[in-house]
This record gives sequence, structure tokens and C-alpha cells, in this order.
Amino acid sequence: MECVRISSKIFLTVAESFDCKGKIVFFNFRMNPTYLRTFQAYGESGIARRKGPAQAAKNGAVGVMVRSLAINLNDHPHTGTTVYNDSFPKIPAVAISTNDAEFLSNVLKSGKTVQAVFETSCKQLPDVKGYNVIGEIKGSKFPAEIITVGGHLDSWDLAEGANDDGSGVVQSIEVLRSLKHLGLTSRTIRAVAFANEEISGTGAKAYLAEAKRNNEQHVFAIESDAGGFTPRGFRLEMEEAKMQKIYSWNTILNTYGLYETSAGGSGADVAPLKEIGTALAGLNTDSQRYFDIHHAATDVFENVSERELNYGAAAMAALVFLVSEHGL
Amino acid sequence: MECVRISSKIFLTVAESFDCKGKIVFFNFRMNPTYLRTFQAYGESGIARRKGPAQAAKNGAVGVMVRSLAINLNDHPHTGTTVYNDSFPKIPAVAISTNDAEFLSNVLKSGKTVQAVFETSCKQLPDVKGYNVIGEIKGSKFPAEIITVGGHLDSWDLAEGANDDGSGVVQSIEVLRSLKHLGLTSRTIRAVAFANEEISGTGAKAYLAEAKRNNEQHVFAIESDAGGFTPRGFRLEMEEAKMQKIYSWNTILNTYGLYETSAGGSGADVAPLKEIGTALAGLNTDSQRYFDIHHAATDVFENVSERELNYGAAAMAALVFLVSEHGL
Repeated sequence: MECVRISSKIFLTVAESFDCKGKIVFFNFRMNPTYLRTFQAYGESGIARRKGPAQAAKNGAVGVMVRSLAINLNDHPHTGTTVYNDSFPKIPAVAISTNDAEFLSNVLKSGKTVQAVFETSCKQLPDVKGYNVIGEIKGSKFPAEIITVGGHLDSWDLAEGANDDGSGVVQSIEVLRSLKHLGLTSRTIRAVAFANEEISGTGAKAYLAEAKRNNEQHVFAIESDAGGFTPRGFRLEMEEAKMQKIYSWNTILNTYGLYETSAGGSGADVAPLKEIGTALAGLNTDSQRYFDIHHAATDVFENVSERELNYGAAAMAALVFLVSEHGL
Repeated sequence: MECVRISSKIFLTVAESFDCKGKIVFFNFRMNPTYLRTFQAYGESGIARRKGPAQAAKNGAVGVMVRSLAINLNDHPHTGTTVYNDSFPKIPAVAISTNDAEFLSNVLKSGKTVQAVFETSCKQLPDVKGYNVIGEIKGSKFPAEIITVGGHLDSWDLAEGANDDGSGVVQSIEVLRSLKHLGLTSRTIRAVAFANEEISGTGAKAYLAEAKRNNEQHVFAIESDAGGFTPRGFRLEMEEAKMQKIYSWNTILNTYGLYETSAGGSGADVAPLKEIGTALAGLNTDSQRYFDIHHAATDVFENVSERELNYGAAAMAALVFLVSEHGL
């Protein structure tokens, strides 16, 4: 069974109409290569991986193969989260490379009877205790006002997660280092390496809980979780008046090639702080190469550009400096 | 002998004061990593490679070692042109990697006597005949008005020159293909793969000579010779009124992430067309990774991003379309 190209909105409705009894279901949902910003394609096509296996199980399937969420054709499977439905069996589900998906699709289109066999040893183990790692410089003028700069420590198991999100972690440390070096720390600045972003965001939840317990005043939080690529600007998740204040700095940010600052989702690790009124931001990167490496064996140190990584850290440091010195 | 860090303006004056009799001169002129646009650092630091050997020969040196024009530390020598002075011996000159330059610099700084030996078999052979490769679509409304889209065929010998300038060549072909496919060819459009950009630009000179001989009307020419990286905008080399017309399209270009269009040098292969009044442009790319690969063994196919390459071609096609349909 192969899914024809459909919009994500009607994907599950169509999926519901298939009888999959005893079968392996193959979801061949391609990422749309025509979107300039690749995260838009990820948002749209990710539904097959996230919800496809649960839907297939509901329809009687015994296993699922999902086309990897990569735009280009290559041989690397790209993994990621799948949300099962407790009312139906948690059937095995695997991601196959885009090249393999094309091959399988062509064989299916030829009308031949296809037999597929796969074996997987994946299992969900009980949670273990993990830790956020936090470095802090006390603000010289407004020590009670906290600015968080973060990335996440964990990664998928196929590689070391150099871009997702080793980049964000080292950039956060670099923001702290550079502002300390320059003596620009009017407000308290924290670099946070969050635990467990990929599976259930428990590090982020614990950070919020601790903030509430200590009655901390979190004025601003920014995350880098879109790879160590050339920065383009920032995604802002905050009140309109605060956004306008950041837009007023665009003449400065433009000088550094940062032209793409607008409203948008900040980042999974800082998002919970919204509950306590924190103004949130995310680093916007040039996303052309992100899905070459995302959740795949290619997300290694060698695929991080030193200059692009530093450039992103400098962009974050510039915005954190502006907020730290001028407030929001 | 080691050069201390000095501005390029006083570099040769300082170099003139050294007595190099019987010595190998080492130029350790670092590219300035703090410039956002790496070509600025290349323009400044390139003087040691281009003019250093001639100056050292004038001062009695027997050989020259030049620090490679790369910003990051790595093990790859990056080559390039050197201009000798016919009045002095053409002494051997080699580029060494940035890591080797650091090593040599540290040894020299330690005050130890250093003996260096190198052997090179490079020589300049007589010119042979080469060819520009040209594809053309006749304009449907203004066939006499020619738009040239180009890159260059030749590369340095350490690698295939995938970015410098295989990228420009395939992007030029892609501009032609896409505008033909879309039926957007009111003016005549030519994709030109220029011969011999790297050494003496004879392909570009021949193209101009042919244009003059045939009394052709070249209204616009654009070159891609800054690598197949994410496009940022265009460098414009034309009359003010024509630049203003292109700026009036910025609202369209901004939509595609192209924010950096301003006056600047177009490209070595289209530049001669200035003589016959052609409006010139060059594709501005994100230059962070360019000097990782420039004129080095790393300028290979694997270091070109398919999406970034296509994005650059689409940016060029957009500008060529605007000029082709609306004139300048």
C-alpha cells in the first residue's frame, strides 16, 4: 500500500479508509522541496512518522515503514518520535532512506507482489534520572532578572547529534563566555544545556518547575535548535510591544546579515517558560542543509562549519546583549 | 623571516626593507577572521601570495613559502596566482596549509635556527587553444538584446573545482533551462561557460572581442563565481539608474531571502563587457564556507549542497527573468 501525495490535513482521514489487516504499511510522504524554508516541509510531512504507525495499527497493520524526513535522495535513514495510541498494538515502525523509499515505491508501482521483511530490536526502557547543566553569571545591575540561553544535550542514537543540538549547547556557552569577556552582563545570564528534549522534554519541564519553586523572574529566553548554520534572524514568541522593541534593533541586526526576524515558535526547551510570562526567541538559521543531517548518521562534527557555528553564537550574543543592557 | 600582522597597504613597503639574500622567505599573512564577508579578508590578505614572491626575489630571496588563504586551521594548501616581475628571478613559491604555517611560525618565534627545504616541479607551459562553451535561446520579443549568464570552466589542479566554478557553470545552464521551460525568454539569453578565468581571462576577452566583431547588443550579464552556496543577493556594476530599477525589485527578491543587493564587483568573466556598456551583476553568496574549499583539494562535488546550488540558480533565474521581461 502506498500513500499518494496528499496534504497533511487530509492524511489521517485517507489513512483511516485503508484496510491494512496483516500487512506492512509503507508511508512514502515526500518532503516538499519547493519550500524555501525546510522546516515548513518538515512540519507538513512529519505527520506520517509521528502518527502513521498508530493509525496503521488501528487499521490492523503488523508493521510500518516510513520514508525518512530528508529532502534530498540519499542512503541514510532519519529517525524521530512516533506517538502510539494505547488502545491499539504498538506495532514495529522503521524509517527507511529516501533512496530506499524511491526503490520500494517504484517496485510497488510496477504492480508486482512485494514481500517485505524487517526486524527491529528497539524498545522503550524505563526513564532514568538525567540533569540539566547550567552555567550562570549574576547580573551587575539587575541580578534578579534572568536571561536563559539554551540548547539541548541529548540526541538521536545514529550519530553524536553535532548539529541537533551540540551546536546549540556550545553556542549557549559561547554567548556566556563572550558577554563575560566584554563585561556586558547587566542582567543575570544563564547558559542551559537541557536534558531530554527529543523524547519528552523533561529537562525543560524541570527547569520551569525550578523557576516557579524559586519564584525566579525570567525576562527572556532564547534557544538554538536549528543547527549550527549561518544565522538569518530570530523567531519571536512574546507580547507585541516586546516584539516591536526587538524590531527597533533591526537596523543593528541587519548590519550582521540578520534580516529574518519575525513572530514564530521559539524552541521546545524554552517554550514552557511561556507559562510564567517569559519573552521567548529562537535562532533562525539557513535551513538548506538541515535535513541532510537531521536525526541521521550524518549529524557529525565534520558536518558543522566552524565559521557558521561562531556566526550563530555571535548573532545570539548580540540579541542577548541588547536585551540584557536595554531590557524588553 | 616572518611578517608581523600589518595592513595590506603597508605590506610591500615593509617587505622592501628586508634583506633576504639567499633565504627562503615565509609570508604568514593571516586572513582576518572577524570580517563577516570572507571575500573582504581575501582581498586584503591575498597580496602576500600575489606579490610577495616578486618582492622577495627583488630582495635576493631564493624561494618563498606563503600561508594559504584559508581562514580556519586545516591541513590543505590553497593555491592561486602569483605575479612575477620580469626584472627579477622567478623564484619558486609554494603555499603551505594554515596548520603548517602555525607550526612554522611557532618554531621561528622560539628563536631556533630553522632550515627549510622544498622542491617544486611547477612550470608555466605555453598556451594552448581553449574554448568558451555557449548555449543560447533567441529572445521572442527582443532577439537582438542579449543577456549573458556565466561561470567558468577551468579550475585549479588540486581538485575538480566543484564550487570554483563548476557551480557557476551548472547554475548558468539551469537558468537557461528553467526560463525556457517557463517560456520566459523575451530577450536572448546565453549560458556561457568561460575558458581560462583563473590564469589570464582569455575566454572573457575572446567573448568581448566576438561581441564587438558581431556588433552585438549586450544589455545585461551576470556571473556566479562565489560558490554554490545559499544566495544572499547581487553585486551590481552598472549605471545608477539601472541599479535603482533593480532595487525597485527588492520587495520581490526579499521574499526569497535575497536581502543583500548593492554596488560591487560583478565577476572576472563578465567584467570586460563593461567596455561596451553592458550592465553587470554577480551572485552574492553566503561566503562562510568558501575559503574552506577555495583552490584546495577540498573543492569537490561532495562539498556542494544540492539545495544551496539550486537556490542560487533560482535566484539568478529570478533576476534574469526580471531583466529579460522588463528591461533595465
